[in-house]
Amino acid sequence: MPLVRIDLDRSAPIERAAIVGDIVYEAMITVANVPKDDKFQIITRHEGAEIVFPANGYLGIKYSPDLVIIQITWNSGRSVDVKKQFYKKVADDIAAKTGISRQDVFISLIEVAKENWSFGNGEMQYTP
Amino acid sequence: MPLVRIDLDRSAPIERAAIVGDIVYEAMITVANVPKDDKFQIITRHEGAEIVFPANGYLGIKYSPDLVIIQITWNSGRSVDVKKQFYKKVADDIAAKTGISRQDVFISLIEVAKENWSFGNGEMQYTP
Amino acid sequence: MPLVRIDLDRSAPIERAAIVGDIVYEAMITVANVPKDDKFQIITRHEGAEIVFPANGYLGIKYSPDLVIIQITWNSGRSVDVKKQFYKKVADDIAAKTGISRQDVFISLIEVAKENWSFGNGEMQYTP
Repeated sequence: MPLVRIDLDRSAPIERAAIVGDIVYEAMITVANVPKDDKFQIITRHEGAEIVFPANGYLGIKYSPDLVIIQITWNSGRSVDVKKQFYKKVADDIAAKTGISRQDVFISLIEVAKENWSFGNGEMQYTP
Repeated sequence: MPLVRIDLDRSAPIERAAIVGDIVYEAMITVANVPKDDKFQIITRHEGAEIVFPANGYLGIKYSPDLVIIQITWNSGRSVDVKKQFYKKVADDIAAKTGISRQDVFISLIEVAKENWSFGNGEMQYTP
Repeated sequence: MPLVRIDLDRSAPIERAAIVGDIVYEAMITVANVPKDDKFQIITRHEGAEIVFPANGYLGIKYSPDLVIIQITWNSGRSVDVKKQFYKKVADDIAAKTGISRQDVFISLIEVAKENWSFGNGEMQYTP
């Protein structure tokens, strides 16, 4: 059910994007009660000037061209605490497994109703 | 008012993407009470590894590289039943008119307030 | 906190996209109470047939291949009046500073809760 959009610089190899995707998926399973195999992701790699971030940083955080923007559409209902754990695990694991700094992990969540998905076959799998 | 994002593999010809877009538009008009000519779509074609789906499938559905991910932002207010009809018509028509399987049609809906649109001219056309 | 997606035709130079991005950022600061340096944007340039708009226009507005689609995810809480001012300033400034017509500025807003962001470091910066 989560649909994950990952946008990053084209200079990043597709392998790096795949590792980021795997980390986001694992963090969802571990922390956010997402079912196994519910892994739908769209990766878009951009030319340099197409990912825009504040040159001065924001809230004390400094960004580099390694910036990865992760936007997730998923069902509402997750608590503030679960979201906190999720942010931390994603950034920690990306820093541990790729060359990307924890400062360069940007996450945005969009919450929707459970009937707002069709996973194929023209069916509404999560009927309310 | 719907803004439709269609993401699919770059191996798909642009004609296929256009047919998918037309089908989504027609289903909106027919089933979901969207006004005529309200057709705004963004198609992005991706390299193979950029569209990620579960190799084992999900909920019994198997996916192939033909997977089309359709994410629609539209106004809230449509019933569960309308959404069900919409999912079915989109998947049925895509299967009928393209070589894509009904299993490879993924749909995600995001609902917003009616004042959340400007269709041009800097105006809020749907004032609440 | 706003995450801004700007989609436009590939024939547009990246400089035009950057000007559009700067205008959106300035309008957010001026009209919509967005903090300084909160500038996160994803620009995607598309081949011609990938940005779809109604050939007949919609609501009396006519579109051209210059169409710029701006979709913004930001926190809920902004008033209808603020949104109106924002639409107007974005379209006016784009028309004034680029060759794009005010008719070709399409804006879509998605509203989320304040805990739905991590700006880096794995932290939830806007704790509710």
